[in-house]
Amino acid sequence: MARIHNFNPGPAALPLPVLERAAREMIEHAGSGMSIMEHSHRGKVYEAVHNEAIALTKELLGVGNDYDVLFLQGGASLQFAMVPMSFIPDGGSADYILTGGWSEKAHKEAQRVGRGKARVAASTGKDGVYTRIPKQSELNLDPGAAYVHITSNNTLFGTQWHSFPDTGGVPLVADMSSDFMWRPFDVSRFGQIYAGAQKNIGPSGLAVVLVRKTLVEKARADVPNILSYKIHAKENSLYNTPNTFGIYMARNVLAYTKELGGLAEIERRNRAKAGALYAAIDADPDFFRAPVEKESRSTMNVVFRLPSEELEKKFLADATARGLVGLKGHRSTGGIRVSLYNAVTLESTQAVIAFMHEFRTQA
Amino acid sequence: MARIHNFNPGPAALPLPVLERAAREMIEHAGSGMSIMEHSHRGKVYEAVHNEAIALTKELLGVGNDYDVLFLQGGASLQFAMVPMSFIPDGGSADYILTGGWSEKAHKEAQRVGRGKARVAASTGKDGVYTRIPKQSELNLDPGAAYVHITSNNTLFGTQWHSFPDTGGVPLVADMSSDFMWRPFDVSRFGQIYAGAQKNIGPSGLAVVLVRKTLVEKARADVPNILSYKIHAKENSLYNTPNTFGIYMARNVLAYTKELGGLAEIERRNRAKAGALYAAIDADPDFFRAPVEKESRSTMNVVFRLPSEELEKKFLADATARGLVGLKGHRSTGGIRVSLYNAVTLESTQAVIAFMHEFRTQA
Repeated sequence: MARIHNFNPGPAALPLPVLERAAREMIEHAGSGMSIMEHSHRGKVYEAVHNEAIALTKELLGVGNDYDVLFLQGGASLQFAMVPMSFIPDGGSADYILTGGWSEKAHKEAQRVGRGKARVAASTGKDGVYTRIPKQSELNLDPGAAYVHITSNNTLFGTQWHSFPDTGGVPLVADMSSDFMWRPFDVSRFGQIYAGAQKNIGPSGLAVVLVRKTLVEKARADVPNILSYKIHAKENSLYNTPNTFGIYMARNVLAYTKELGGLAEIERRNRAKAGALYAAIDADPDFFRAPVEKESRSTMNVVFRLPSEELEKKFLADATARGLVGLKGHRSTGGIRVSLYNAVTLESTQAVIAFMHEFRTQA
Repeated sequence: MARIHNFNPGPAALPLPVLERAAREMIEHAGSGMSIMEHSHRGKVYEAVHNEAIALTKELLGVGNDYDVLFLQGGASLQFAMVPMSFIPDGGSADYILTGGWSEKAHKEAQRVGRGKARVAASTGKDGVYTRIPKQSELNLDPGAAYVHITSNNTLFGTQWHSFPDTGGVPLVADMSSDFMWRPFDVSRFGQIYAGAQKNIGPSGLAVVLVRKTLVEKARADVPNILSYKIHAKENSLYNTPNTFGIYMARNVLAYTKELGGLAEIERRNRAKAGALYAAIDADPDFFRAPVEKESRSTMNVVFRLPSEELEKKFLADATARGLVGLKGHRSTGGIRVSLYNAVTLESTQAVIAFMHEFRTQA
């Protein structure tokens, strides 16, 4: 079987050893006579996996018991609705900082939910295009806001918050879908973090949510049970049947992450990958052009353009023929996007750099 | 590797050939150089799987283009909220027929959602215990209701609707989580059907929804985008990243179902399994007691009691030691429950019957 170099923006590459483990355990999980998918979510075998996924999340991030770790369905998109439904009081408001297409979506959903107001506290967009993260001085924050919402990494545009905004006493809420667990960071800066699993920690159909317990306590009670953080926290994410296979896969990815040396080692690898790729781009500014402000560059999604759209088209076709896939930029930005999530190896990154050199020489 | 007899109530047994296929394709899906989990949900490889899952659902059930088939996250529990949020008008109401714990949950969530009223049109419960399906004459239906909601099979109590209620012109909505696809049936009787996948068609973390297009058109617009049937239908269940692996597994189960001969053959097998088990119970009424009214008996979940709780405890322990697992009744009913979903074989059913005879002889 041939594995190719996969730079998909999400769902994205998974570590090969994790897939091999899933294949090995598919028919019979841990001597139990059945697949993990066939286990009751209320049985001991599954519960051990479930609780290990939660424990590993806390351990890798150094999170204590002041946060609940939830594994929910509906991805980040359901969080776009659950956050404002739970936390904006009637007549109150929340602040949204817009840095890309996904923060726009989160903001629009907060407006639709019909609880108070969803204010734009800052936006770096021009005609729907975003090339940077705002500075602290650009934020027009409301000290009375229920929370401040950011998107920590912008998959479409290739920008990333490298230091998080100071929100005073207002809880900071972050959609970390595309850069969760890429490095160690101080969770205590956040009231809530949520992330679709399908970039760095597992398959799609799963969202991990970290939420400060004191915030959960203040959540509105007038929401459907299935959308209640309080209920999901109280029931340890077993209020309804969770995505058991997705959580099993996340457990395996997290266990593998720990085995590799934890988040400090993951950060070292990610910086090596992104550093090498940006260096290749910067070394040849007449041919490769990074549209994003240098200080805002993402370590997860490296976006660049070639001198013409024709060349970009040829680049993508030639890359695919060479077994380098998932490099097409988002339709809103065009160009090339190389997603370097945790499971993308340095070898794959070097393969794309070698191809860039070769393509440049021939062009 | 040893596979055991799995009678779990859900997540439940999956067909062995389907698990074998998943193991085989885990590292590389269909010559694409990556797992199905690593494919973009907007790429051709995944989209073929997605659309085949939808087409197979329609084909197996004989459904035409007047219904949308959606694959959503959040299981049946999210449908408990989405149905009333979408369809009960301000000041209007919907009718709920209560036949077990899950229909109670659906009804309570409809009340919490805060759109109009959720009326109880019938209930066969006494002190939270349900032993039968109501007759048509017992239904106190409101001709002005937005819809009538039923739970077609009651996993906890082992009862099942064998013929569906006549609701006049009012759309019938059914939670079919635990008996979807167990036999052919006339979908055109229903405005909407929804089912968590984890009993008959796949792993947990996935719900299949069939909804009449004319009903979708009438859905309320004032819901969050992520809870909008209109948006999910328009986007072919790709508005947000779906549970791609779950849908892949459902596709495989549905393809296998077709290979076996479709739903007529599945019904024949299910009737043979349930028939044999109920016959074993009825043959020995002094020892085995089915608490459920005969005409309401479920073909999916066969519930019975032994003469004492001590014997039930011993029965369950001895069964587990013999590789017969998942037989414990729900905590609200006690006793024994044998779930005979589609993937449970006649051989497994015969194994449990043989064990019952043996246990009876020794007791």
